[in-house]
Amino acid sequence: MAYEFRMRRQIEFVETDMAGIVHFSNFFRFMEATEHAFFRSLGLALHEDRNGHMQGWARVQASCQYARPLHYRDEVEIELRVREKTRSSLAYDFVFRRIEPAGPEAGEVARGELTVVYISGARAGGKLRAAPMPEDVTRLVEVAPVSSRNPA
Amino acid sequence: MAYEFRMRRQIEFVETDMAGIVHFSNFFRFMEATEHAFFRSLGLALHEDRNGHMQGWARVQASCQYARPLHYRDEVEIELRVREKTRSSLAYDFVFRRIEPAGPEAGEVARGELTVVYISGARAGGKLRAAPMPEDVTRLVEVAPVSSRNPA
Amino acid sequence: MAYEFRMRRQIEFVETDMAGIVHFSNFFRFMEATEHAFFRSLGLALHEDRNGHMQGWARVQASCQYARPLHYRDEVEIELRVREKTRSSLAYDFVFRRIEPAGPEAGEVARGELTVVYISGARAGGKLRAAPMPEDVTRLVEVAPVSSRNPA
Amino acid sequence: MAYEFRMRRQIEFVETDMAGIVHFSNFFRFMEATEHAFFRSLGLALHEDRNGHMQGWARVQASCQYARPLHYRDEVEIELRVREKTRSSLAYDFVFRRIEPAGPEAGEVARGELTVVYISGARAGGKLRAAPMPEDVTRLVEVAPVSSRNPA
Repeated sequence: MAYEFRMRRQIEFVETDMAGIVHFSNFFRFMEATEHAFFRSLGLALHEDRNGHMQGWARVQASCQYARPLHYRDEVEIELRVREKTRSSLAYDFVFRRIEPAGPEAGEVARGELTVVYISGARAGGKLRAAPMPEDVTRLVEVAPVSSRNPA
Repeated sequence: MAYEFRMRRQIEFVETDMAGIVHFSNFFRFMEATEHAFFRSLGLALHEDRNGHMQGWARVQASCQYARPLHYRDEVEIELRVREKTRSSLAYDFVFRRIEPAGPEAGEVARGELTVVYISGARAGGKLRAAPMPEDVTRLVEVAPVSSRNPA
Repeated sequence: MAYEFRMRRQIEFVETDMAGIVHFSNFFRFMEATEHAFFRSLGLALHEDRNGHMQGWARVQASCQYARPLHYRDEVEIELRVREKTRSSLAYDFVFRRIEPAGPEAGEVARGELTVVYISGARAGGKLRAAPMPEDVTRLVEVAPVSSRNPA
Repeated sequence: MAYEFRMRRQIEFVETDMAGIVHFSNFFRFMEATEHAFFRSLGLALHEDRNGHMQGWARVQASCQYARPLHYRDEVEIELRVREKTRSSLAYDFVFRRIEPAGPEAGEVARGELTVVYISGARAGGKLRAAPMPEDVTRLVEVAPVSSRNPA
């Protein structure tokens, strides 16, 4: 069982905007990429399409608090922790830390949260309908102990 | 003075992902585009670069709650309301509503929040430093009356 | 029948990069958005997903020549012209022109080409297989007369 | 001196579109990321902003030919080769190859070209002005021998 995961990525040019920093929307893409890597590390798939039926994890809530900007070529570590788990949903906490360049600007740059709900059903539009998550997810993903959480 | 703004946009193909719906990170891009259009409607600029000094509105907090997915070619209305205003910051509430296709799937699809802080200073990385917002913003942007807010 | 289409869009903040200009990859997104608007103007759909079977127009060739950069808030006109039409493919020429700001910087900023092939088949990966385009496309889309082309 | 470079990346969810494949515009982003990694491998920087003066490599031509689609989680190798070098410009050829999943779908999926010109000047809009490339680029980047090129 696992409740945390860390990965690093280097900021690409296209992820910046004319303010010279990473566009704030990209932090959400980085969270999702980390979530997917977490699932892969457990041998789980996040999204499946079976005969036009979408099965996967719908995002129902996402947020991010930004303390410092990220720049082109910065290396950032993204830490994921499972905060909550219900029959059909998972809530994650994320911490973004600048690893490179080292020095006074290294360290925490942002925090985020993501809540996802397992859905299974026809592709047709309409209100998202939650379903019990697959048994292997229930078995392999657990909630992080409170003592291991990052103090804000 | 103004405290609300609405704009419409039609979902483009590139804004979708393999789940067949608008990627959740794009809602943040739509919020920002609405904020920029709100400023433009008042004759205000959101971002300026004067001799390499960045002056503009740093995003310090962003969140979104998703109730229904958006699809390619949907027409969505994004409503912005000013929830809070301090000497150097603005907080906005957003409501996303599907306009087209009409019918049972029309109506509210998501809600978002954005808090931005005016910064003025050297481009060099480092902790964002808040500055008093320009006088014309103080004069033209006001907080929405509570009675006009959208009940959740 | 139609062989040309024009639309305008205003450059959004997120479309810029740290060089202060529109990222070159976004010109391809603008071409596609114009192609989709062209199809919509004729009552045609560009992409359909029927029971997990992808039917639509695969991109087989894309190119762009850049003469001047586009900036945040510029208004650009994108002109599409049909250069070629076979049983299963369409080739488009695009011209990008800055409309606003007016003045010495107005006028042509880039040219692009896009070749798309109609495909119809199972979603499974693999070599793209061309199919005869739908009859309504054959009927409604025609090749632009050479005399109407834009001299380079 | 160097004239070629290879890197791998795994396709992320956000890089797909509702057709279930990587959006064609992203291949241009992958080319650029490879170009940047190539420069970094030589200790060179691709973009610099000195006191508001943009110095870097403007894209003047970009193209891509697509043979097979890429999917979520595919691992792709991107090979860059220097085709041409003038006093102020570089032209690259790219080959995209699917590495994972192995099997009949592995192998070449696309080819691309990119021509970039060194520019040095004020940030103000306007026609791109070429400048002689920095001496260290001249010294470190060379043209690939014809015999080493990939037959189409």
